[in-house]
Order: sequence, then structure tokens, then C-alpha cells
Amino acid sequence: LYCDTYVFVRTHVSVNPAKLKSHRQRWNVRPSEMSKKTLNPIRAIVDGMKLTPNPEKPMIALSIGDPTVFGNLPTDDTVLQAVKEAIDSHKYNGYAPSVGYQKSREAVANFYSCPEAPLEGKDVILTSGCSQAIELAISVLCNPGDNILVPRPGFSLYKTLAVSMGIQVKFYNLLPEKSWEIDLQHLESLIDDKTACLIVNNPSNPCGSVFTKEHQHKILAVASRNCIPILADEIYGDMVFPGCDFQPLAPLSSDVPILSCGGLAKRWLVPGWRMGWILIHDRNYIFGTGIREGLVKLSQRILGPCTVVQGALESILNDTPPEFYQGTISFLKSNSEICFSELSTVPGLNPVMPSGAMYIMVGIEMEHFPDFQNDVEFTERLVTEQSVFCLPATAFEYPNFFRIVVTVPEEMMIEACIRIREFCARHYRPRSQDSHELDQ
Amino acid sequence: LYCDTYVFVRTHVSVNPAKLKSHRQRWNVRPSEMSKKTLNPIRAIVDGMKLTPNPEKPMIALSIGDPTVFGNLPTDDTVLQAVKEAIDSHKYNGYAPSVGYQKSREAVANFYSCPEAPLEGKDVILTSGCSQAIELAISVLCNPGDNILVPRPGFSLYKTLAVSMGIQVKFYNLLPEKSWEIDLQHLESLIDDKTACLIVNNPSNPCGSVFTKEHQHKILAVASRNCIPILADEIYGDMVFPGCDFQPLAPLSSDVPILSCGGLAKRWLVPGWRMGWILIHDRNYIFGTGIREGLVKLSQRILGPCTVVQGALESILNDTPPEFYQGTISFLKSNSEICFSELSTVPGLNPVMPSGAMYIMVGIEMEHFPDFQNDVEFTERLVTEQSVFCLPATAFEYPNFFRIVVTVPEEMMIEACIRIREFCARHYRPRSQDSHELDQ
Repeated sequence: LYCDTYVFVRTHVSVNPAKLKSHRQRWNVRPSEMSKKTLNPIRAIVDGMKLTPNPEKPMIALSIGDPTVFGNLPTDDTVLQAVKEAIDSHKYNGYAPSVGYQKSREAVANFYSCPEAPLEGKDVILTSGCSQAIELAISVLCNPGDNILVPRPGFSLYKTLAVSMGIQVKFYNLLPEKSWEIDLQHLESLIDDKTACLIVNNPSNPCGSVFTKEHQHKILAVASRNCIPILADEIYGDMVFPGCDFQPLAPLSSDVPILSCGGLAKRWLVPGWRMGWILIHDRNYIFGTGIREGLVKLSQRILGPCTVVQGALESILNDTPPEFYQGTISFLKSNSEICFSELSTVPGLNPVMPSGAMYIMVGIEMEHFPDFQNDVEFTERLVTEQSVFCLPATAFEYPNFFRIVVTVPEEMMIEACIRIREFCARHYRPRSQDSHELDQ
Repeated sequence: LYCDTYVFVRTHVSVNPAKLKSHRQRWNVRPSEMSKKTLNPIRAIVDGMKLTPNPEKPMIALSIGDPTVFGNLPTDDTVLQAVKEAIDSHKYNGYAPSVGYQKSREAVANFYSCPEAPLEGKDVILTSGCSQAIELAISVLCNPGDNILVPRPGFSLYKTLAVSMGIQVKFYNLLPEKSWEIDLQHLESLIDDKTACLIVNNPSNPCGSVFTKEHQHKILAVASRNCIPILADEIYGDMVFPGCDFQPLAPLSSDVPILSCGGLAKRWLVPGWRMGWILIHDRNYIFGTGIREGLVKLSQRILGPCTVVQGALESILNDTPPEFYQGTISFLKSNSEICFSELSTVPGLNPVMPSGAMYIMVGIEMEHFPDFQNDVEFTERLVTEQSVFCLPATAFEYPNFFRIVVTVPEEMMIEACIRIREFCARHYRPRSQDSHELDQ
């Protein structure tokens, strides 16, 4: 593996041939297979793009799923104060249990417990961000050679983690014409005897969609019929627009075992703090002690999230005023509406109005933009000409769309839409009768 | 894997036999092989012990490698203030790059750079604690089926991580009679063509030993001769007693590539904050870009340590007053001397005086304690009778020793030594002439 050439040398003074050792003659240190298999598709695509903005227009990045970058969406003072109090208490500098402080686990359990899906402290594992929650959940449910079912379009981390662990990814389709509901027939057709887990992401990154209760019952029916546990990525839980309800998945089922992953990142607007959790829902005792013990063991590899944030968790969850959450949501809704209404009148674009989270997906009628081969070229040129950067949805395994992050300040959102309109007007080609005939 | 029984059912309406799918008839969700292979030997041993303290004596735990538990070793105010300023700045709530903020990486590089082993920001990867630094380093250097060389006695996490990844652990001996130096012949005899990495832990947990420069040159010679990269676990770096020098490994070699792992946990007395780092030393360009890129890729799985602590890092490293470090070290030295001088006059015990870190290893002359089979039984009964808990060194793969943590308040250390003396006096049996003859 490491070396092309070996020589045999004697160690010690023995002449016993059994003690002869092989010995590397030269250096040849190579990165592991796992590190080579750890691929971030967003990086792979973005790094391959030529992103040279138009020097005459200031750059507007609508690409980064981080609500803090423009300073217009600060977290609440309660949240900051809670951490400062945790520091001043001098109580949160030592090691916590690898699954988190009991008190902090109970605070999360109380916050998310409901009569249909009660939670106690023991049902909560604190993790270094929702990313690690997802990693632990996949790690405990899947072996190399298994497969997991992942939404398309979907968050790229699922694939990154799974592939690096030798787990196969099968993509099930979301349907833009049905507000990104799951194509349930397609989903079920992918299940085989190596399917270890179904990942359901609601509200969705990159779609901003929110499933109805009825749709979630149907998803659960598929899982139940095929005896597949669910990893529910609910990091955008409760980030839904007024008039729409976020329904957590677990209370809707009494038999399907569910690991629900969440964290402070999005709703409390502190993604860098790396505070996530797994909620273990297993009212039918299907996970049993095995999965719970497995999660505890896996948590001992890294020893949990930062204790200062853990110490602040109870106060963050209980004392953040409702107005804070409402403020975030009305801003996101207003920006989404601006973006949607602006872009839906742009010939060649088909935005899909979101109901939550912080994203809008916009379809590109590629046949009307013959200057570009695909969404990557389209968004690349949008940077070159208009200094607006949106992620091509190829990064979410969904070509011919792009994703807009709606957390930017309103005036920036308006300006970005104007520039996108200008860009499309310049490159749009209505189908001529000739080309129409050629196509047929 | 998951299920004993399958039935074939039709999906959709097709009767094409190729479309028949296997379908699980009943639930059978089991924890993954990786989670089952993730074993914490300390937990395994401690959980198997019957730890019922003597109700007449208050418990003294000398078992926990966490300097914060008794409140006598607080971190410095500079450190706490730095984090509060990071919070107040509102600049450290968003995502950092997965390898850490460039400014924070540069602060670490500047702190550890020296003319013989210069470091820049690009040579530093920030991680969620030193544990994750060690995990990333092992993950990038080793594949399943490889082996790593690990000290015995040694910190159990190396084995926990390696075994869970399918990597074999080979233990090389440390020599108590030579202040826990490495048995270099034994070390070299273990190397084969599947050896991917040598782990050197200096100063040592659990030994409290500190290698001389000369000894480290010899270790490097073994690595160089056999072309084995080194993972240097230097989390206790600079925590050495006056009169003794800590010598980082990397400046002593210009050819052996070294990943040096460290963090805030021990020297700054904030283990719960989970702020660690890898320093990449590769002056001979043996790691090349492959290992660096591999580390970056692996860091993208979890996205780095808490940003608030990252934001405080520059100030923590640069502004913590020297008196703080000196205060910690003189306390540890004083407590070590008390413990060593008390226990070295206890018949049947052989403490080894440490030179740094926060531990003392104590040998047990088991032949003089016929009441106990081994160090586990010895330390278990020490709890039952004297309410003093020390970790049996079987937890460090080194039977017939126990480890004492010297961070407890002085009066507690003195009281613990008195009780250990009483315990040994009660159970010590001098070898009679008869038993002596029987032994021969």
C-alpha cells in the first residue's frame, strides 16, 4: 500500500529468520481511502467555476446558507447573554459526559416533548452541530455496503458522509410541481434489503418546502410497510411562514423509529456554535437498547459539543422571546415574496415559492438560454456579467435549477433580482418556429 | 443483515418479474459494526467494578483527568474575558471555514512556530478538541488493515478510535525504570509493512513523564529509518515542572513528517470547550499536498470547533499571563511531590515520580497483596474501604499499576495518601520464608 520497494534488514542481533523484518526503504505517505472518498460536491462544483465578478458591480452572494454573513439577522440578546452567564458561572469549563450534560439534554427534551411523542433527557444526544448529529445517526444505523435513501434535490452532506463510510446513496425524487413533495412511488421502488435508513429533510434545504401532515403520514406508511428507520433532518423545524404549520415527523407515528436531528444553527442564527442534537423517538421499542448504546459509544469518539454553549442551552431554549423567532420568519417570508414575485415574471425562469427555511429554488428553461450548456454555466456567467452568485442546483444533484438564499438584506435582494432579470433578458431566446420544428 | 425473513411483493402495477422487490416483513434495526467496535476501555473496566464507597469516609476521586472538577484550578480571567469579548463582537456566530478561521489558525501557528520548525496558518487545522485532532490524524494516515504503534501504558482513545476504524493497534513498551522512556528495540521490532503511523505521547498520560531531547532524537531515528510518519500527541506540552524542559518533537527532525496534536484543554484548563488543533510539520515535503488535502476534506464532515472559542483564540494564546501557567505547574509539582514522597514509603507500592502533565503512576507489588488478584481488585477494594478511587492501569493496558490524578486540592491529596497507606498496611503481607521457597 505505502511502498513500492522493501528490503529485509535484521533487527536486534538475532539471526533467526523468523525475526527478519520488512522495512520501508523510502517515504511514501498517502492519504487514506476514507479521506479520498470524502467529497463535498458544493466545493467540487464551485471550485471548478470561473467566478470573476463584473468589476463595475459590487458582488452579491446569494449562495451561502449562513444567515449571519450580512449582519442583518443577529441572534437574540438572550442567546448571547446566556452564554456569557455560562462563562461567568465557571461551571462549564470541564468535560461534560460525551452525550452532553444531563440538565442540557433535559432542556432539549422538554423543549421538543409533546404528548404524542414524549421525550426525556435520555432520549437526547448533544452533538457538535447538526452535521455531527447526522453523522452519528448514519454511523449507528448503517454498515458499509448498505444504502440510504436521500432526497433529490437535497443537502449534499448526506452523500458526503455516506460515501466516505462506504454506504451507497440512492436518490428519491422531489416533485417541484407538487411543492417539492416526495415522489412516493419512486421512493418505495428504491428500497431493497440493503436499505438501512430513509433521510427525510423537512423543511427542506435547498427547496424551502414544508410537508403537510398528510404527506408525512404517507412517508411514514412507506417506512412502516418496508420496516425502514427514518433520519429526520429537522434543522429548519419551526422556520415556516405564517399560515403554514411545521409538523415534526415523530409525533405522527407510533411504530416507525426516528432519529430527529436538529440544533441551534438556523432558528437561533448561530451556525458557528456547533450545537446540535439527536432526538431518539422509539415508542415501539424497535431501536431497543442497541441503537441507544451505539450512539453513546460513537459520541465517545469526540466527547460532545462545547460545554459553554451546553451550559447556556436551557436558557437559550426557554428564555428566547417569541418575537425573535417571529421577526426572523417575517423577514424570510417578505424576502422570499420579493424574490418570488420578481423572478416569476422573468421569461425563462420558474421560481418555486417556499413555505419556510431560507431558500428558493429557481428553475431555468435551458432551451431558452442556448448560450449556456447547464445551470453551472448559467450561474457562472451570472457572476461574470452581474456579480450575482447563486449556487447551481447541480450541487444538490438537481440540474437546471439554481438556489437563492433569502437571508440577505432586502435592498440587496431587490438589486439581485433586477440584475438577474437583466441577465436573463440579455440571454433569453424565444423558440423560433424553425427551432421548434427542429426540436420535434 | 437486518432481517431474517423477506417476502416478495409487487410494487406499482407492473407484473414484470424484474420489478418485484424484496421487502422486509418485520423490524430488525441493529447498531452498526462500527458502533459495536467503538469501545472505551476505561468505561468497560470502571463499569465492571463494584464501586461502593465506605459510608464513613467522604469519597476522594483521583480518577478523573479533568483539572476543573474541584474548582481549585480555575482558568485565567484573560481566557474567560476573551470569550466574552468574542461574543460581544457579534463576529463569531456564523460558519467558519471547516479548518477554522484563518486568523485563529495564524494565531496558533505564531504561538508554536520556531526557527527549526516554522509554522504558518496553512499548517494548522482547528478541531473539536484534541480528541478530534487525533481522530483526523489517524483517519488521514491509516486505512483499515493498517496498524499503528501506540504506547503501553497509554491513553485509551488511540485504541478506541483505531479499532472502530478497523485499524490494528500494536503496543510498544514504556520502561518505568527509565522514567517511562520508550523501549526502542521493542518499538522497532513491531514495525512491518502495514505500519501507517507511530503515536508518541509526550508529556505522557498516564505516566506524567517527559522525554529528553536525546531520547526524542532516538525515536525520530527509528521513524526515519523505517519511513513511518509520527502523530505527536502533545496536549500536555509545556506542562512540565521547573528544572525540566518540554521539547516539542517536530523541531528535532527535518525529515520525519509529523502531525502534532494539541489544544486548550489542559494548559488553559478548559477541557470542555473542545478546542484542539493539528500542526502539520512537513519540511521534507513527504506529506505533500495529499495529506493536507485529506485533512481539509475530513474536516468538512463536522465543520470545525465552536466559532466563539475560535474568535477568542488569538487573545487566549497571546494575552494569558505567564504567572497563570507557572501557578498551575507549581501546584501540580507540589502535589506530585507530596503524593510521591508519601507513597514511596508505603511498603508494597512503587510510585514513579513524574516530570509533568498531571498524573502519577504507582506500581503495586501484587505478590505482597495476596488479597487481590490484580490492580482492578486492588483499586476496587480501595474504594470500598477507604473511599479513594484511582484508575487501575489495566485501563491503560498496563496491569499492576494504578494512576493518580494530582489536580485535586492539596488537603485532599494528603488525606488520600494517608488512606492509601492505611489500606496497604492492612493488606500487605511480607513474603515469609515458606512462601518465598514456594515461589521458587
